[in-house]
Amino acid sequence: MADEVILLDFWPSPFGMRVRIALAEKGIKYEYKEEDLRNKSPLLLQMNPIHKKIPVLVHNGKPICESLIQVQYIDEVWKGKASLLPSDPCARAQSRFWADYVDKKIYDLGRKIWMCKGEEQEASTKEFIECLKVLEAELGDRHYFGGSNLGYVDVVFVPFYTWFHAYEQCGNFSIEAECPKIIAWAKRCMQKESVSKSLPDHEKVYGFVLELKKKFGIE
Amino acid sequence: MADEVILLDFWPSPFGMRVRIALAEKGIKYEYKEEDLRNKSPLLLQMNPIHKKIPVLVHNGKPICESLIQVQYIDEVWKGKASLLPSDPCARAQSRFWADYVDKKIYDLGRKIWMCKGEEQEASTKEFIECLKVLEAELGDRHYFGGSNLGYVDVVFVPFYTWFHAYEQCGNFSIEAECPKIIAWAKRCMQKESVSKSLPDHEKVYGFVLELKKKFGIE
Repeated sequence: MADEVILLDFWPSPFGMRVRIALAEKGIKYEYKEEDLRNKSPLLLQMNPIHKKIPVLVHNGKPICESLIQVQYIDEVWKGKASLLPSDPCARAQSRFWADYVDKKIYDLGRKIWMCKGEEQEASTKEFIECLKVLEAELGDRHYFGGSNLGYVDVVFVPFYTWFHAYEQCGNFSIEAECPKIIAWAKRCMQKESVSKSLPDHEKVYGFVLELKKKFGIE
Repeated sequence: MADEVILLDFWPSPFGMRVRIALAEKGIKYEYKEEDLRNKSPLLLQMNPIHKKIPVLVHNGKPICESLIQVQYIDEVWKGKASLLPSDPCARAQSRFWADYVDKKIYDLGRKIWMCKGEEQEASTKEFIECLKVLEAELGDRHYFGGSNLGYVDVVFVPFYTWFHAYEQCGNFSIEAECPKIIAWAKRCMQKESVSKSLPDHEKVYGFVLELKKKFGIE
């Protein structure tokens, strides 16, 4: 039986983009189902009854939830091609540490940059840049966080690149001026079709953020 | 060369207890180093420069941080005995999902129960019980979350059992009345020496919470 793979997703979600990149890296064909988050599908509610959130990966009828877990699942099931996690347990733990760091910091700080104003926005922007500098130091002179090949941390982090433009416009700062190596790394990732085809255009994401700001009454 | 394993920890930490249980399950000898969190050791700051938090597992000089990652690391390095994660990728993803659920919910809600008062405390207590009921439904009629053997989710969740008494005293409720199956499961876990010897007495934890409340000026 051929594998049936379905991804319940929402186009601007950096969490969904992680799963899209991982599936593309592995060369897995799948059915993409766009969710309307204001009117969630019965399938989404059935497949993720605990969190009711996208993305959900449905593999042969079984749901896998939470993007970090989904990427690890994809790496474990389709082992043959493009390993995302290293095989050495210590290196795996390091990869998981940095993926967790990205997960705990970047989305929430980015959200505060476009949701807040004044001092709160400035503080979030400052902390966001500090986090990127920590990640820049961790990257060092490597091609990717995964070394010479795209790895788990790259897959987890690079979706935020398409949100950088919105953060910069809302927070009035330049990520390239602060963290040139992070931008160079992101551009290297974007040269891979698995990444560039999984990320929407940054202007489209910025347009989405402007719509959200209007909806929440943030001028 | 024999393995050198050091655990930097603080006795009431449920995160540290996870690592203690995992090491005990595997029968690993290690050096336990108690940290004074008001005066962190140079070793802690050197081994976890990003978060500066316990627990840190130092294996042959290399640091492993974050308790969920540490437990997975221990399971991957010492494979021979007492597997904590299942081998099937889908079952592994489910274990990771529930460990993540415990991680995102229980500590923060428990902390709100003893830190807050009035309506905020009531709301946290209500949400805490709801989360335990979700976990109780997931456990079902199984002996452990890991099935017939103690597994990853058990190791991640059971340390909070020793905090339950403090939550109940502060929030004025009974977990056993609400979730009898969770208490029965925790007592089963406590019959294992790997668990009972890794958890401090619940009265001692409650005493620690009372000290914290005094320190923070919460009556």
